[in-house]
Amino acid sequence: MATQYQQAVEGVVTPQMRRVGERERVEAEFIRGEVAAGRLVIPANRRHLAGDAATGVKLDPVGIGRAVTTKINANIGTSSVSSNEDVELEKLRCAVRYGADAVMDLSTGGDLDHIRGHLIANASVPVGTVPVYSMIADRTIEELTTDDMLAEIRRQAEQGVDFFTIHAGILRGHLELLSTRKIGIVSRGGSLLAKWMLHHGRENPLYEMFDEISAICREHDVTYSLGDGLRPGCLADASDEAQFAELATLGELVRRARAAGVQCMVEGPGHVPVDQIQMNMTRQAEVCDGAPFYVLGPVVTDVFPGYDHITAAIGATLAAYHGAAFLCYVTPTEHLSLPQPEDVKAGCIACKIAAHAADVARKLPAARDWDDAMAAARAELDWSGQFELAFDAEDARRIRGRDLTGQDDYCAMCGRKWCAVRLSRQVKHALKGH
Amino acid sequence: MATQYQQAVEGVVTPQMRRVGERERVEAEFIRGEVAAGRLVIPANRRHLAGDAATGVKLDPVGIGRAVTTKINANIGTSSVSSNEDVELEKLRCAVRYGADAVMDLSTGGDLDHIRGHLIANASVPVGTVPVYSMIADRTIEELTTDDMLAEIRRQAEQGVDFFTIHAGILRGHLELLSTRKIGIVSRGGSLLAKWMLHHGRENPLYEMFDEISAICREHDVTYSLGDGLRPGCLADASDEAQFAELATLGELVRRARAAGVQCMVEGPGHVPVDQIQMNMTRQAEVCDGAPFYVLGPVVTDVFPGYDHITAAIGATLAAYHGAAFLCYVTPTEHLSLPQPEDVKAGCIACKIAAHAADVARKLPAARDWDDAMAAARAELDWSGQFELAFDAEDARRIRGRDLTGQDDYCAMCGRKWCAVRLSRQVKHALKGH
Repeated sequence: MATQYQQAVEGVVTPQMRRVGERERVEAEFIRGEVAAGRLVIPANRRHLAGDAATGVKLDPVGIGRAVTTKINANIGTSSVSSNEDVELEKLRCAVRYGADAVMDLSTGGDLDHIRGHLIANASVPVGTVPVYSMIADRTIEELTTDDMLAEIRRQAEQGVDFFTIHAGILRGHLELLSTRKIGIVSRGGSLLAKWMLHHGRENPLYEMFDEISAICREHDVTYSLGDGLRPGCLADASDEAQFAELATLGELVRRARAAGVQCMVEGPGHVPVDQIQMNMTRQAEVCDGAPFYVLGPVVTDVFPGYDHITAAIGATLAAYHGAAFLCYVTPTEHLSLPQPEDVKAGCIACKIAAHAADVARKLPAARDWDDAMAAARAELDWSGQFELAFDAEDARRIRGRDLTGQDDYCAMCGRKWCAVRLSRQVKHALKGH
Repeated sequence: MATQYQQAVEGVVTPQMRRVGERERVEAEFIRGEVAAGRLVIPANRRHLAGDAATGVKLDPVGIGRAVTTKINANIGTSSVSSNEDVELEKLRCAVRYGADAVMDLSTGGDLDHIRGHLIANASVPVGTVPVYSMIADRTIEELTTDDMLAEIRRQAEQGVDFFTIHAGILRGHLELLSTRKIGIVSRGGSLLAKWMLHHGRENPLYEMFDEISAICREHDVTYSLGDGLRPGCLADASDEAQFAELATLGELVRRARAAGVQCMVEGPGHVPVDQIQMNMTRQAEVCDGAPFYVLGPVVTDVFPGYDHITAAIGATLAAYHGAAFLCYVTPTEHLSLPQPEDVKAGCIACKIAAHAADVARKLPAARDWDDAMAAARAELDWSGQFELAFDAEDARRIRGRDLTGQDDYCAMCGRKWCAVRLSRQVKHALKGH
């Protein structure tokens, strides 16, 4: 069977393109055109589309590209320090509840294969992974053979993973560019591959085996998410030679992926000062021929650990406004610990704010309707309407309810007498009387 | 005695300019030049500078302007629903601890005069107020006379308030422009004055008495913060005719304030989509001849009540990058309730992120040194160094400590084996060996 990309190129509108069109309120043919141009991906492994027999859950396809609303991803998964399957399932549910359009299982602790299968079987959103993590679960990176790599990628494709982060763009020749960096590599996958290359004195095996990997992806319609192993890990390293050298390789791989009939997006930074974000987005779009850009943050300052969901929301808003299509959330635990469900919630909400604020600023059709409805509810002092429209009605109700009970038509900010909106309504009424 | 502005114009470097220069690590003469140009203000009421006899606390002067680091303000104060003097003092301490460069006492409940005096006596940061609030504490806005207004302004100036929000820019003729708005007026002061104007059929008394008010400000060196009574209260109302009509009047008042020898800044929106923020900043700078711009947020979407510290941090970063000098924090309780101390903390941190991220992006001298030091600590896996550099070490330690105890040199994100920074150090070491 052909991939979404191959069918789009052949002019076929798939059920998944129709579904994406329906969700985005645009014509399916428009979605097809975007997929064919490589500007929009629909990560949808055939196995995940078919659904899980035991849970009855199957994938509801999502479109990722600039022509549609900005999407957000939540990274979940265990580590060797903290690993519990039930907690991961709770994180998945929490992520979806708070707006995640996709999740990535980045587990590195516990029974990785089992956890992954469990998440896919319970996820109606696309699930992504970084296959290299599982490759070294029971061996060192040095021991890893190229056959091991392909076997694990095949295993995960068969299991139903919708998109793979493949760090095929970090080349042996790039490593010397790291000498000027404050922090070298902050990508786990990137650092593992760098270690492999140095140990074996060989080129990046994922780059060398790119055609074989593409064949596996094509067979199952797994979407590439070309990893940025050399993404900057601090403001000082942003937009440096190493980052852009890898980006050039990613641009080459985008074209090779398309030639192989595989859907493809590209991952981006990281840590980037506010004044460099637009340039980074423009550059990726040029180098990668419009392939959807999937950014992590970027965080816009390094000195607020514990609050990196906010530093990232700022960067993500600018990234999505200037060119990114897919935002990976950052939680308050970034740089410190593994997120727990409440951190997943905080990360999703901050990221959703970025996505929506950017969609409004991009003037996507109907994006601001939601805000306008909230404005109308506020103007009417319609509190139940405000809660219904609030992204997180529960927290909004809780905060207002701290000081007030019952049916008061005001909040504790101003009290009743001082309510500006109430006063403004009186002014409006008086003006009409004039 | 002459104001900071008058002295600056006369070429006098005051002790306050020296102190600001010291804090900003620039020459005092440079500060004097900025004050003389009206581009920088040092809100410093003589009474507050002298200090409080009982508490021994006195003002440590702060400079607000584009030539120096971006400053943040925390609004505190009671409402009729929630009013407790001790809580306000706790909020003041919390605000200063988490980076507030100034606070505004916006109390509208309890003994306003007493609370205000108490806060000034305990604040080493500049304290601002909106005098119109206290004017109607024991009467209706309709009953308020122009003598009452001047008396309250004088009272607060004598009490030591460092800056006054004066809504002198909202004129009678502007009110008809509100007819096209989704939400009319969302400024308490603006809506009160609009009601007064309509009731009395007269022009804005603060506009008409601007010279008298300026005389009071000059006497005590209170800085004007010209209020934007017509700031937009939702995205749909942003950048509309009403907002810019008032801005034109504010531009006129900036020049009148300077002519009267009074320091002056200008308040701005509010609710503004990401794509309109730069234009708003540029326009204010032109219309108001470079007077420091003091913005509330702006929030960049209306639909996340409970999370408006984040929606505002996004807008504030862009505002500060493109022209604002002073950011008013927004707390998670915005649109819902009065902030409690923990909300003051959340609001300050989010706002501080915006200020610092913008200062880094503006390439202010040394702004990024802090981030670079953090990057160095991260590269060294120096956890105590990271905590020392973290803006909020307490929260950072708490989050990392959730899963780890003791002297581990890694965090729960990746565990020890998977730590990208550790791997990267091995790569760096191996590269050196080649």
